[in-house]
Amino acid sequence: MAQRVREAYLRIDEVDRPEVWITLRPRAEVLAEAGRLDERMAAGERPPLAGVLVAVKDNIDVAGLPTTAGCPSFAYVPTQTATAVARLVEAGALVLGKTNLDQFATGLVGTRSPYGAVRNALDPAKISGGSSSGSAVAVALGIVDIGIGTDTAGSGRIPAAFNGIVGVKATLGLVPNTGVVPACRSYDCVTVFARTLGQAQSALATMTGPDGVDPRCRTWPADVRFAAEPVIAIPRDEDLAPLSRQARRAFGAAVSLLEESGARTEVVDVSGLLDAAKLLYDGTFVAERHAAVGEFIDSGPADLDPSVAKIIGAASALAARDHVVDLERLDHYRVSAGRTLDGCSALLLPTAPSHPTLAEVAVDPLGVNRGLGTYTNFVNLLDLAAIAVPAGTADGGPFGVSVITRAFDDQVAFDLAAVFTGEQAAELYPVGGVDLIVFG
Amino acid sequence: MAQRVREAYLRIDEVDRPEVWITLRPRAEVLAEAGRLDERMAAGERPPLAGVLVAVKDNIDVAGLPTTAGCPSFAYVPTQTATAVARLVEAGALVLGKTNLDQFATGLVGTRSPYGAVRNALDPAKISGGSSSGSAVAVALGIVDIGIGTDTAGSGRIPAAFNGIVGVKATLGLVPNTGVVPACRSYDCVTVFARTLGQAQSALATMTGPDGVDPRCRTWPADVRFAAEPVIAIPRDEDLAPLSRQARRAFGAAVSLLEESGARTEVVDVSGLLDAAKLLYDGTFVAERHAAVGEFIDSGPADLDPSVAKIIGAASALAARDHVVDLERLDHYRVSAGRTLDGCSALLLPTAPSHPTLAEVAVDPLGVNRGLGTYTNFVNLLDLAAIAVPAGTADGGPFGVSVITRAFDDQVAFDLAAVFTGEQAAELYPVGGVDLIVFG
Repeated sequence: MAQRVREAYLRIDEVDRPEVWITLRPRAEVLAEAGRLDERMAAGERPPLAGVLVAVKDNIDVAGLPTTAGCPSFAYVPTQTATAVARLVEAGALVLGKTNLDQFATGLVGTRSPYGAVRNALDPAKISGGSSSGSAVAVALGIVDIGIGTDTAGSGRIPAAFNGIVGVKATLGLVPNTGVVPACRSYDCVTVFARTLGQAQSALATMTGPDGVDPRCRTWPADVRFAAEPVIAIPRDEDLAPLSRQARRAFGAAVSLLEESGARTEVVDVSGLLDAAKLLYDGTFVAERHAAVGEFIDSGPADLDPSVAKIIGAASALAARDHVVDLERLDHYRVSAGRTLDGCSALLLPTAPSHPTLAEVAVDPLGVNRGLGTYTNFVNLLDLAAIAVPAGTADGGPFGVSVITRAFDDQVAFDLAAVFTGEQAAELYPVGGVDLIVFG
Repeated sequence: MAQRVREAYLRIDEVDRPEVWITLRPRAEVLAEAGRLDERMAAGERPPLAGVLVAVKDNIDVAGLPTTAGCPSFAYVPTQTATAVARLVEAGALVLGKTNLDQFATGLVGTRSPYGAVRNALDPAKISGGSSSGSAVAVALGIVDIGIGTDTAGSGRIPAAFNGIVGVKATLGLVPNTGVVPACRSYDCVTVFARTLGQAQSALATMTGPDGVDPRCRTWPADVRFAAEPVIAIPRDEDLAPLSRQARRAFGAAVSLLEESGARTEVVDVSGLLDAAKLLYDGTFVAERHAAVGEFIDSGPADLDPSVAKIIGAASALAARDHVVDLERLDHYRVSAGRTLDGCSALLLPTAPSHPTLAEVAVDPLGVNRGLGTYTNFVNLLDLAAIAVPAGTADGGPFGVSVITRAFDDQVAFDLAAVFTGEQAAELYPVGGVDLIVFG
């Protein structure tokens, strides 16, 4: 394994993107760990992820490394590694370090960090996307195999689209959030970036399953589906209004590819889904961010990102009864989403409406950020699963689509996403807890 | 069927408890419906609940009858019958009318109603318990077979204990809440009173299953259990401190009965469960009541019960971020509850700590009410299921115990509750959605 580790550190030097990392582990330390892994294997062990190199977003605990959440004055050094990462390590993965992010995972841009804006892997004038910016770029630049991120409103998908890689946001509660700094704890999800779907799926399967600590863990339901029916919902032309002509053409090509693979597509009205996203910005759910880190924000540390401070600070004034009303609205949006997908296995959407430059974000940080989440914001709120995959190019960069499914239809999403990557799924994602089911 | 209906109306006259009903349907109307049911049966239909007589709590819609929720000025006449009741009627049940309740289902006493305090079926000086007071007393007095109630903190169980009948609060989300005036919508549950477990189970099975409207409906999980393991958790002596000596003796006899049936009992510390209940009174969850009917309450109608007005009115000042914090606390209490029940199939508790008189409630309406929920309040909050059954007598009245299980272990609760009623469960409760499962 030592050779892999040495190559990764050479690559880190070569790409010269220091803003990717908040904490990079010393090479010797990782080499020593690789040595111990070699010993495990020499002793006959066959860890399924042996030698897989991993970058971890810096709002996820790795024992002994500081967790900053993108805010130096917030930093603490955990003694326990987050469940998701501990499972990867147990399976033989090697963690190289902790990656940059939009502070407190609040943003989709990748620029809201005192550790520097993370530049795009392919075009440094463009944004990387966020909030899981560093992990995505580390994967896209070929430094690591797996980037671990989090996703509340698109943070595990937008950076995948902007850097031309795969980003998987599984069903909420499948991967434990134990050891993750909460953003909106009801909607937070640990995610995986990889260059192939297969790698992402292996990592995800390893991380999945209740840990007895995270109270929001869920198990597979009795009616979990393993295969897609050949009908895929696609948006109306007007739902794609924010896209450039090239991006619209790329989306059309993605639809054609699905159809050539044997799927039937059906145009649906997704405006109800897109509307639900407004609750995230205009409603009371930002109270979750305040409950997580509001006391710290209210104490006025000097290294707060101004956008983040503004967003979270304002949430202390929101009323509980309005939060209840929003939760009820959300429940109804969820039912409507089910109806929108009626008869369909999945919904195909662009992952992002456009790909801004760093300069554009600097001019209008809140406005640009808000627009970016058009096609991702509603997914966690409505308890859907999504996989972002590359699908051609547009406007001189990668174009990405997302396969969005109902909760627990993650395998369906993997199968459909594979149409775009050209991969064959090796094994089913749902492992454990559902092997007792026989479909009648 | 006409004979059954005539007898019920004779019984109504005979018992002389006008406070039980808010709206009693005219006898002729119900007789006409019975006639139509006879025709269905003559045509070969075999409705499973043919001729079963039902009383419906007046916070649940029955088309054409006013829904008052115990507050005349709140009344409206729905055009749709609540899903749960519509399913009973479709199965051949006949609704006699709408029953009295603690206003807006806020109370466990059965006295908070401008339609009069509902007197206990067995001892009119004592309270009936609430909030589903009228439905319970209508069953206990032998007027109807099935009383439909609701339960957020014990409203479907306390009146069962006080009137010597069965009360079933199934897992949240199994019975749709469509057409029910919310109390705390996240924790509200439609319940069944009956004189036998078998009748309760038949009614409940009929009402169960998603209706495509209530967004909080849930389906059975892959690991639903159908049988109890022979270990039952029981409380420590100090957890039973509020009970009278006779009540403690009755509880001891109930434990012995379980043990004689072949179960092993294991003493557990239930203080964590009982603590969780405090969130219901001292936390922000009352914001749910304000979200449901707070605007109406704030408008200051003259026919508000003073206790109800006080409780709900105060909830407008609560903060969203504190609600988020309470929700997180609750999630952790839920995990702790799982640990408390570790290795056990169910928990046996008294249903109520004591049985107050109407006079005692009049002296201290809030204090007495709060005490009553000691052993019931935590159940819905922690996503547990419970069945209240009679278990001997104490202090000159019926004594009741509750079999409390994890969510979806409803069949386990039915099996154990049957030890107390001496019944044999006729068929499994979980119907539909789980018949694809094979246990390996």
